[in-house]
Amino acid sequence: MSAAIKEIGVGMLGCGVVGSQVARLLTQDSGDFAARAGAKLSLKRVAVRDLKVKREFIDNSLLTTDAGALVGDPSINIVIEVMGGIEPARELLLKAIKNSKSVITANKALLAKHGAELFEAADKSGVDLYYEAAVGGAIPILRPLRESIVGDHVHRVMGIVNGTTNYILTKMDEAGSDFASALKEAQNLGFAEADPSADVEGLDAAAKAAILAGLAFHTRITINEVSVEGITKISARDIQVARDIDHVIKLLAIAELTEKGEVSVRVQPTLLPRQHPLAAVRNAFNAIFVEAESAGELMFYGRGAGGAPTASAVLGDLIAIARNMTRGGQGHGESDYAELKQADRGSVHTRYLIRLDVNDRPGVLASVAQIFASNKVSIETVRQSGRGDSAELIVMTHSATEGSLSATVGALAKSDSVKSVESVLRVEGAR
Amino acid sequence: MSAAIKEIGVGMLGCGVVGSQVARLLTQDSGDFAARAGAKLSLKRVAVRDLKVKREFIDNSLLTTDAGALVGDPSINIVIEVMGGIEPARELLLKAIKNSKSVITANKALLAKHGAELFEAADKSGVDLYYEAAVGGAIPILRPLRESIVGDHVHRVMGIVNGTTNYILTKMDEAGSDFASALKEAQNLGFAEADPSADVEGLDAAAKAAILAGLAFHTRITINEVSVEGITKISARDIQVARDIDHVIKLLAIAELTEKGEVSVRVQPTLLPRQHPLAAVRNAFNAIFVEAESAGELMFYGRGAGGAPTASAVLGDLIAIARNMTRGGQGHGESDYAELKQADRGSVHTRYLIRLDVNDRPGVLASVAQIFASNKVSIETVRQSGRGDSAELIVMTHSATEGSLSATVGALAKSDSVKSVESVLRVEGAR
Repeated sequence: MSAAIKEIGVGMLGCGVVGSQVARLLTQDSGDFAARAGAKLSLKRVAVRDLKVKREFIDNSLLTTDAGALVGDPSINIVIEVMGGIEPARELLLKAIKNSKSVITANKALLAKHGAELFEAADKSGVDLYYEAAVGGAIPILRPLRESIVGDHVHRVMGIVNGTTNYILTKMDEAGSDFASALKEAQNLGFAEADPSADVEGLDAAAKAAILAGLAFHTRITINEVSVEGITKISARDIQVARDIDHVIKLLAIAELTEKGEVSVRVQPTLLPRQHPLAAVRNAFNAIFVEAESAGELMFYGRGAGGAPTASAVLGDLIAIARNMTRGGQGHGESDYAELKQADRGSVHTRYLIRLDVNDRPGVLASVAQIFASNKVSIETVRQSGRGDSAELIVMTHSATEGSLSATVGALAKSDSVKSVESVLRVEGAR
Repeated sequence: MSAAIKEIGVGMLGCGVVGSQVARLLTQDSGDFAARAGAKLSLKRVAVRDLKVKREFIDNSLLTTDAGALVGDPSINIVIEVMGGIEPARELLLKAIKNSKSVITANKALLAKHGAELFEAADKSGVDLYYEAAVGGAIPILRPLRESIVGDHVHRVMGIVNGTTNYILTKMDEAGSDFASALKEAQNLGFAEADPSADVEGLDAAAKAAILAGLAFHTRITINEVSVEGITKISARDIQVARDIDHVIKLLAIAELTEKGEVSVRVQPTLLPRQHPLAAVRNAFNAIFVEAESAGELMFYGRGAGGAPTASAVLGDLIAIARNMTRGGQGHGESDYAELKQADRGSVHTRYLIRLDVNDRPGVLASVAQIFASNKVSIETVRQSGRGDSAELIVMTHSATEGSLSATVGALAKSDSVKSVESVLRVEGAR
């Protein structure tokens, strides 16, 4: 096949913020891309919902509403899916793969739910399925995990993979704003959607966490196996308390191997020391921090969203697949031989910062300390500050299991000494 | 070929700090590596200079002093070169390639000098030539540049690619030490060699700059085309002055496209604002900052040297090549279609910080300002501080060409008002 290829036909499903940038760049830079790919890349067809919407960068004659015909079109060798959503994206990609077309998708939700089905189909058809844009936008992170760090053992991946929540948390940290007003500002500036729930509840990050975990640990993880906590309960006071101890709160996607060789994948607001490389990642930027046995600490930083950055990743995949076609052969598929067990949530170890509203009277600290001790959670530091008849008690624990911590928090909530458990936050990144 | 492969034979040239880690990991993790590569990876032979040196991780029967026989051994499919130096490494790799073996090298000096010859030979023989470890140690940067950002237009790459000099500059910044004592500390801790000249004179960084530039701009750059300035002249006072204006001095490898589409590659001590992502890269860590048209700003961070981190990159390449063999096909070769011109050194634009020792008398500032003006270098700020009969004048310029700046510095040196030009430093990273 290789020597004969002069042109590679490209079809695209969807033409929104990302798709229109892909179309623009594909047309504008066709000379460079041909030189890099070894063949001309021609956009043959773009499936859209509404033919009448004005589209700046696309010849109207390429538009179609018949996505089903596009994925069967013999003039198309590579299908790019930027329509989003589970169906019909899943069905269309499977059909394209079955028709021996290589595919590119930026659809993290689809991959985190139906990745296994898609990977197996691609493997069976002998085509490439690339998806660099699905995590971290423009940041090359999936190819490095799949191909560069493949001779190492990854212990942990921690990522800031959602720009909306990072923007909100940055504003809360830098301007002292509360969650609601930081969210409103993010919405006004276009960094958050009118319905922000997928971002602020952590679901977008959870899909990305599942993808990262699968690649890092050579196993299959779906979004259902990710435990998720968003940032809606983070208060200005939480941020202030973190700041007082020289930490910052970030929404992290964490995938790690436990001591028993099981995998734990979670999305959670997390305190990080300010000198940690992830702590300096501000506003809508993303970064993924990888800890591996031989490589040590690695970090990948860049723009995690937006039309042009996401298009950059899609086009990188496109040229890589085109090169596979012109040079003969196929890219590296998924490796999921490890079949790791999910760690029991209760067995995962972390440090915790617990903020309590307690009665300000003698003996309260002793009784609170006793509750921690009887649940085998060791205390690292306690700070107490009175405010009238209540006091605020801020407890930093040593590393403890999620199970012991839950039991502790349960007992604290029932204790006469404690008016309320104001917040429980995990702490990572100690050296 | 693909379905039949059960075992892939590996030969290694050299067995020092990196080679012994490669051997250890290859033996220790063979099960995982086989699952990831799709075939067993067997270390068949290791060429060393002295058979009698005790080697912890290698079966003595694998050792040979006959490197020439190793690269011709039919049981070996992939040759790893970690011996270093230009010859005989070049000759041995060419022979291995000619014998249809894929090759991996961590040898930046060799690639920066003879890369074209090696790439062409690999292309002609249809084998893979991978070299992720040559720049940035464990950091995946070459594969991302070659494969992930290939659908974008890189404008600039700025890298901290030498751990020794970054360690020295970090100590000078944080402890206020001068160059000599920071170097001595680095040597005592094993971060600098007894003869540190390749590091502190910028030659190691220059080789890496040439490799990065070639990949980023799809062109060929050799080390001879890189203009190089080391850190030996950086004084404690330079660091202090940078600190006063909230900057830090880093030794940067810079590769950029000029407005005329020519390429400028240089290694130089550079002032960076403290909020720039590269400014936070401390001690022996490396990081590469990439600015691309669609992707925006990207950064790759990690350990740039050391046995295990470098071995991680070598083994990543090994498994990637092995996968190419088991799946059929070949990796992406070099793309050098662009054949860009080298920018004339004098035409490159930067901002400058110039520190002068001047006579402390009326009219000096006016006369100095006149020299800048008559050479068309525009001044952004001037700070003057008296010290007896001299004064220190610190001038930050707006962006100016290297040519105008040289003329300015020449005229300043001759001026009666100026006792001496204490330092001239470039400033990058303004937003």
